[in-house]
Formats: sequence, C-alpha cells, structure tokens
Amino acid sequence: MTLAQPSLRPPLKIRRINLDTGRENVVVISRRSTALRPEVFRGFSRVELRSNAKVLLATLILTDDGMVAPDELGLAEPVFRRFGEPAGSTVTVTPAPPPESLDAVRAKIQGHPLSDTEIKAIIQDIAHYRYSDMEIAAFLMGSASFMTSGELLALSRAMAEAGTQLKWERQIVVDKHCIGGIPGNRTSMIVVPIVAAHGLTIPKTSSRAITSPAGTADTMEVLARVDIGVEAMTEVVNACHGCLVWGGHVNLSPADDILISVERPLAIDTREQMVASIMSKKLAAGSSHLLIDLPVGPSAKLAGASEAMRLRKLFEFVGDHFGIAVEVIISDGHQPIGNGVGPVLEAHDVMAVLQNDADAPRDLREKSLRLAAHLLEYDPDLRGGTGYARARELLDSGAALKQMHKIIEAQGPSGAKTEVGNMTADVSAPHDGVIEAIDCLRLNRLARTAGAPIDKGAGIKLFKKIGDRVEQGEPLYRIHAFDDAQFALALAAAKSDAGYLIGVPTAEKSRP
Amino acid sequence: MTLAQPSLRPPLKIRRINLDTGRENVVVISRRSTALRPEVFRGFSRVELRSNAKVLLATLILTDDGMVAPDELGLAEPVFRRFGEPAGSTVTVTPAPPPESLDAVRAKIQGHPLSDTEIKAIIQDIAHYRYSDMEIAAFLMGSASFMTSGELLALSRAMAEAGTQLKWERQIVVDKHCIGGIPGNRTSMIVVPIVAAHGLTIPKTSSRAITSPAGTADTMEVLARVDIGVEAMTEVVNACHGCLVWGGHVNLSPADDILISVERPLAIDTREQMVASIMSKKLAAGSSHLLIDLPVGPSAKLAGASEAMRLRKLFEFVGDHFGIAVEVIISDGHQPIGNGVGPVLEAHDVMAVLQNDADAPRDLREKSLRLAAHLLEYDPDLRGGTGYARARELLDSGAALKQMHKIIEAQGPSGAKTEVGNMTADVSAPHDGVIEAIDCLRLNRLARTAGAPIDKGAGIKLFKKIGDRVEQGEPLYRIHAFDDAQFALALAAAKSDAGYLIGVPTAEKSRP
Repeated sequence: MTLAQPSLRPPLKIRRINLDTGRENVVVISRRSTALRPEVFRGFSRVELRSNAKVLLATLILTDDGMVAPDELGLAEPVFRRFGEPAGSTVTVTPAPPPESLDAVRAKIQGHPLSDTEIKAIIQDIAHYRYSDMEIAAFLMGSASFMTSGELLALSRAMAEAGTQLKWERQIVVDKHCIGGIPGNRTSMIVVPIVAAHGLTIPKTSSRAITSPAGTADTMEVLARVDIGVEAMTEVVNACHGCLVWGGHVNLSPADDILISVERPLAIDTREQMVASIMSKKLAAGSSHLLIDLPVGPSAKLAGASEAMRLRKLFEFVGDHFGIAVEVIISDGHQPIGNGVGPVLEAHDVMAVLQNDADAPRDLREKSLRLAAHLLEYDPDLRGGTGYARARELLDSGAALKQMHKIIEAQGPSGAKTEVGNMTADVSAPHDGVIEAIDCLRLNRLARTAGAPIDKGAGIKLFKKIGDRVEQGEPLYRIHAFDDAQFALALAAAKSDAGYLIGVPTAEKSRP
Repeated sequence: MTLAQPSLRPPLKIRRINLDTGRENVVVISRRSTALRPEVFRGFSRVELRSNAKVLLATLILTDDGMVAPDELGLAEPVFRRFGEPAGSTVTVTPAPPPESLDAVRAKIQGHPLSDTEIKAIIQDIAHYRYSDMEIAAFLMGSASFMTSGELLALSRAMAEAGTQLKWERQIVVDKHCIGGIPGNRTSMIVVPIVAAHGLTIPKTSSRAITSPAGTADTMEVLARVDIGVEAMTEVVNACHGCLVWGGHVNLSPADDILISVERPLAIDTREQMVASIMSKKLAAGSSHLLIDLPVGPSAKLAGASEAMRLRKLFEFVGDHFGIAVEVIISDGHQPIGNGVGPVLEAHDVMAVLQNDADAPRDLREKSLRLAAHLLEYDPDLRGGTGYARARELLDSGAALKQMHKIIEAQGPSGAKTEVGNMTADVSAPHDGVIEAIDCLRLNRLARTAGAPIDKGAGIKLFKKIGDRVEQGEPLYRIHAFDDAQFALALAAAKSDAGYLIGVPTAEKSRP
C-alpha cells in the first residue's frame, strides 16, 4: 500500500526552470496544483517523478507564484537534464519513500557490517541520485565509524561497476595516482609523455580541483581539451599510447564523485574511504599496474611514516584482490614540487621540464623521472634497474616533449586562457634567514584566494624553497590574480601570514 | 584567512522569492551577480548571509533567469521570515564554512563521547538553522551509534534550553506523555479535564501528527484553537488549571523538531534519542511530575516487555537527574483505543466519554481513568489508593466535561471543519470468525491514505475490536474521506488488505 498511486492523479506537464541546484534534483510545484494536494507535501520533502519507464527522485519546493502553473511541474536544470524528457511532456509525481537500501545503512549504523549485495544496492541508488544529501551523509557516517576489509573490497567494486568501465586490448596498462595535498606536483603531465614515448599504455584520467587550487585536469586544460568522451579518449590512447583527460567526463565511478561532494563539506575522509574512492576509479579505468604516490610531510595529507604505511597496506590489499599490481612509494611532502601553484603557472613548470629548459624546476624533473622509472620497469622487456636511465633518456632526448605535443594535438585545443594573472605582487622576506618550512595547506589556500583554479592564470609563483638562504626584502613568492577583490584578499592574507606561510626563521636563529 | 571577506564585495539587495522550502533556508543568486563570482559557488553550496548584526546560513541556488537581478539576492519564504530584514535592504553573502561544532560531531563518529559544552554548541547551532540536512544526519548517526548516559542528560538539557522554558508558580505541575503508535488513544483530552477539574495544574502541550493520522494537537484543534502563544497558554492554565495546546507554537525544544524532521525520513529512532526528545520537551514545559505511557503490542512501537523495561529505566534515569518525578506505565498496545482514527472521529470519542454517552468507547474511558488516577495521586491531599475513585467521580459527575468546556472556551475557536468525511464505505468481514488482531501500523496508514490529518474529518471508524465475533459481510470499519482520489486509494488499499488489517481468522480455524 503506497500513499498515492500514479494512476489516480492527473499527470503534470514538465516545465523547465532556470535554477542550477548542483548535484541535487529539485522540482517546483504550485501550491494550487491540480495533481496533488500540496498540503500533503512539505517543502524539501522527497518526491518520485515517473514518465514512461523513467523514475527519478527529487526534492520538492512549493510556490504560489506564476513560476509554474497548477497543471505543471517545474524541473530545475540538473533534474531536467537527468530526467531527459522534453518540456510539455507529462510526468506524475508521488511522495517518495526512502530508497530500500537505506535499511542496510541503518543496520550499519547499529554496527552490522554490510554485505556485498547491500553495498551494491546502496551505490547503485547513490549513482542514480536516489539518495538525498542526508541519506548520503548517513551512509558516509556509517562507513566512517568502521569498514571491514570485506566492505572495502565490495565498495571499491560496486563504485567501479556503477559507471563506465574501460577495457584495453593490452596486457599491460599502467597508471599512477597521487593522493594530493602538495602544491604544484604536476608529475603526471611529465610521467605520461615519458611512459607513452616508451610505448607503454598509460590512459591517465585525473580529477579537477575540489578544495585545491588545481587538479591535473585543470592544469592539462591549459594545454589541451580534457573533457573528451570514452571513444575520443580511446582514439587518443591508440594513437599516442597515453592521454591526460578529466575522469569526470568519462563517468568513471560516478558514485564516488557524489560521495566526495558530501564528504568535503562534512570534512570526513577516512583511510578506507580514500582507498575505496581511488581504487574504484582505477578499477573502472582498466589499469593492470598502478603506482601510488603518498607524500608525507607536516602539512601534507599524511603527517608520518606509520600513517603512510597503514595506507600502503590497504592499497596493496585491494590491488591484490582485484589483480592490479600495486606499488606504493612514499615521497617527500614537506614542500611544493615545482615553482608554480595554479593551472597556468604549473603548466609552465611542466613544459619547462619537458623542454629541458635551464631554469626548469629540478624537484619536479627528479620526482617525475623517479615515478616514470617505476612505471617503465613494468615493461617486461626492460632490464631491472634501467628504468631511471630510460626515463631520463626519453626526457633529455626530447622524445617525451614530442609525445606530449602529440597528445595535446590528439586531445585538441581547450580554448582556455593561458595568460598568467596580470595583477601581481611580490611577498618578501621580513628578515634574513634560511627557508625552514613551507606550509602546503596555507599555500594552497592562498592560491585559491587569488582565484585559482577558476582563473587559470591566478596563483603563486615560488622563488625560494626549503634550505634557500634569503636576505631581508628579497622576494619569496609572487601572487598572480585577475580580479581586484581576490587580489586584495590574497595580498592581505599573504601579508598577515608571510612568516608563517614560508617559515623564514628569526634573524637571531638563522644568522651564522 | 577566509575565502572572501564581506567588506570587499558590494552587498546585494534582498528580494523576497515566493518559494516554500520548508525547514531549509534557500537563497537564489543570479549567475551574473555583481557581488560574487558565482562560479566560485556551486548549486547547493552553503553560504552565510550578513546584515547588521544578523547572520544566517543558507543553501544557494543559481539562476540565469530574471527571477533575481545581478545586484539582488533572492530569499525563499522561510529564510526571508527567519532573517527578518525587509525586501530591498542590503545583505552580504559569503561562502559559509561548516559550523564549528561539527568538529565535535566528527570526533563523535570516530568514537569520542561528546562533552556537555559540545552538545550545547551543536544543539544551539541546530536550533539556529546553522546545520544543513546532511550535517544534522551526521549528528544523528553519530548519536545513534552510541549515546552515553552523560550525553543523554546533556542532550536533554541542551534541547530544553534552546527554546522557550515555561515556569509555573506552583509546587506540583503534572504532565503525561504517550510514546504514540496506537490509533485513536486520545486519553490526554480526557485526562487533562479530569485532573484540572480536581485542581491540579496540567499544562499539556502536544504534537501534531508527523507520520500518524492525528496527533493530540490535531484532534484538539477540532474543538478549540491550539496554536496559542506562551502568554495566552499561561492565562488558560491560570483560569482552568490545564490546557491542551500545540507544543510547536510555544517553541518548546525547537531543536528537537528539527532533529525529528531528519530522523523521520531516515527512519532512525533509538531509545536514547526518543528519551532525549521527550524529556527535553517536558523539562522545557516545567513539569514536576510526569506519567509516561508505553503501549506494548505486536504492531506498537514497543513489541515486548523487555524493550519497554529498558526504555522505562532511561526515562527514570533522566527524570531523577533533573528532579522530575517520573512514573512509567506499560499499557496494552495490541489495538486502537477508542473507535475513531482521524481528528474529528477521535474528538467524537473523547466527547462521548466526557459526556458519559451510553455508546462511548469503554476502552478509552477505562484507560483515561487509569492514567488520571495516577496523576491525581500526585496531590498530597489525596489518600493513597483513592485516585481511581476520584477520577471516576470527576468524570461521572460531569465535572470533567464542564472543565473541558471551560478549557475549550478559554483557548477559543479554531475554525477547523468538524464534519466527518462525506464519502464513506464500509469494509466487511470476508467470512465468519472472531477478531484476533488489528494491525495498528496499517490502520494508521489507511487513515492517512483517506486524508487524515489534513482532512480532519477523514479517517476510520472501527465497529469491531479484538475478541468480537463477526459474521461474513458484517461491517468491520468505515472509511471516511472528502477527496475522490484519496477515497478511491483508501478503498483499494482496504480491499486488498482487509483480512490483514483486522485479523479475522479463516473460517476453518474460527468455526466451532
């Protein structure tokens, strides 16, 4: 027995409503609606839309206004797109019971581990927008309190299976992933052309920034289009052995993106959730060999070696289970890698390394070579221990640069602006000293305040790194921005923060 | 360092938007807004509104439409009301960080009990609409996984202190509460006039139905106004010793109402959460003596005696701590109490009992007398063991009826419709037998399908109770409705369900 059956209420006509409600499905109904008595519904109650075979859940808003007529149902942009029925066509709307899989979430909260079937049902419901924000939060909270190894495996698999699953007609498909948190650090954009130049397949999908000033997808977009579909991506990989595209556009593990959008505001992020998130994307991407980079440092995501070790074990466990050869390296996460922070500035660093420019950042070059060396040795024809030399050969000879140009050409132009921010200010050392520390978190925030990643040319260019000697008044870094207000904000933040952001020790301590 | 400071962005003008978003604060901004670059925001991100000393958090929706101009911020009805600034006045809007108290919620999820201070901060933030739905869900999930006795006390107190706190200039202020779930069961409306007629103070606040076909407030509203403020309520109590009003209007434990609105769709409801919810309202209502009614039955909220016992201990524990004399009685929850289900039909039962009508439901009369007897014995002047006789005396003499009329007059007329639904259908026994069981859950749902509590006169009138002998074709109950579609739905549900809803045993089993 349900509260209302579609057949007994006249259907409504779909009206498209110009409201961007992000991830959430929102529909608007007239308080004088002919199809249901809106007193039965309250604002923000959940309703089910049906049209032909299509069913979608949405959050309801009521209006007395002419925005929608009494015989219409207003669909905000995201739900209009997802529902996919034309304006004017008919739809029935009924109160929506919570998704059935929520029973399992409730049991989980009470301490019962989830079965594979339950996890699959939950993830399918989430991927199909059947969970409200608060229902997603309930699931995340349940899995944050504990996650068994069986749940971790089932979750990784269910998320991978909920979206596109790429298949490659090759034995060896390599991939790399960094858990993030380090400003700059655009190694993928150097590693991919090196590895592809060697002839190994590396179909790299990356994310856009969510809370950072740039994701690899944002930075690559300075040079080429990254929002290409599965077919185009396959063509690029067939032609170039590799690609650098945005994973969101090819719909890899879409439930993961939805989970992340609730995890971020709640700021919950357990080890298991991180591993399930990353491994679901790698499973969906069809990788056979995966190198994971875990930067460790005081302001990195991992503060110490023991934390990194526990995370490593989890990655290995999941990789082994699904037949992905996982290698985890722990890297230096004390400071940014490269000098630029923000898409255009980072792209400059990348191209400088690929072009073997004299002033190319050495740390970015070295770290990229080291990662590429690991990946190259997945080639059975390459002699053990020669990976690094081969990587350097491909980089120094210009083969990697050539490969990058080939990839850029294959992906096509993005049309993104490539200038650096025209409003600049240098932040100088308050006194003589030696750079002792750089706060990655604050630097990321500062680059975002300046406008990155929305303004691709906004961000920070570093002049000094840890260990560098500086004199009072010598520039430490430059802020780039386009927008008045953001520039002013970034400058104010930098000034109040200068000694903190880049830890120049007090003159007393540092003077010899 | 925050992402944007109000001073650096021009303020927007408030525009009132005709959208009812229920509990949730929703604001609409133009994608071409002058005050912030909306690409920085995404739909459904949280923003902070500021105007003079006022601060409020809201969920953001973007539009390209003329609904709001680039220099305006659209406030949906609920947030417009809560913010309380006139249309056209200025407001600044900035990205909102999550409320600080959410740190404690995260720690709780990780297994750390909450301190009194943390619970207080969380409840204050919730009561002031600073938590989004998903943040509330996170808190509920954390406290559903475990709640220490210290947390239970702190939560009850914090919720009571977050709203109106009534004080009565009397030593003894009695109250009763039933945890609900039993159709009909309007004992409060008989108990209050009996106890008040005796002269004890009983300022009864009740809830409206959320998932049931009627709350006591809905049923009382058939006879009198229930949405009266604190001052009017105090006057009624001073004049009549008692009242029967809606607790929502006097703002008792408002955070509890917000928590419930998230608990219901998630269908999480632990013992501790139930006790904190009820005790916060009783603390806020200023009761000194409280009688709790726990109905136990196969389709009641409590299925067995051991469950009821654990709940009883929790009520006693919290009561003792706050100096409220709590008495818990376990009652028969196998079937409805009274014959009507739905506000008007229940009000008829209540008045029939008070008027000592010959056909008044005996079960409702007996249960009410029993509860009143307990409450009356809180009067130090009443001899132990004489409570029941005194209650019966007050009822049989018409003193309770007279007191009810006095209360109704003092609260004033509500203007609610008092007719029973004019569309009726009788549901008959499919074969001879004896009524073995009545499913309270299904009966409640059927009454709601028929239109209760929105249509006060819709619902069910029962002709038979457990133990009654019925012949094939004899009416079991009558459905009342006003609305075509709801009537048809209820009838269809009743037909498909008849043998289930009221368990007439099969002819084979029941025939002698």
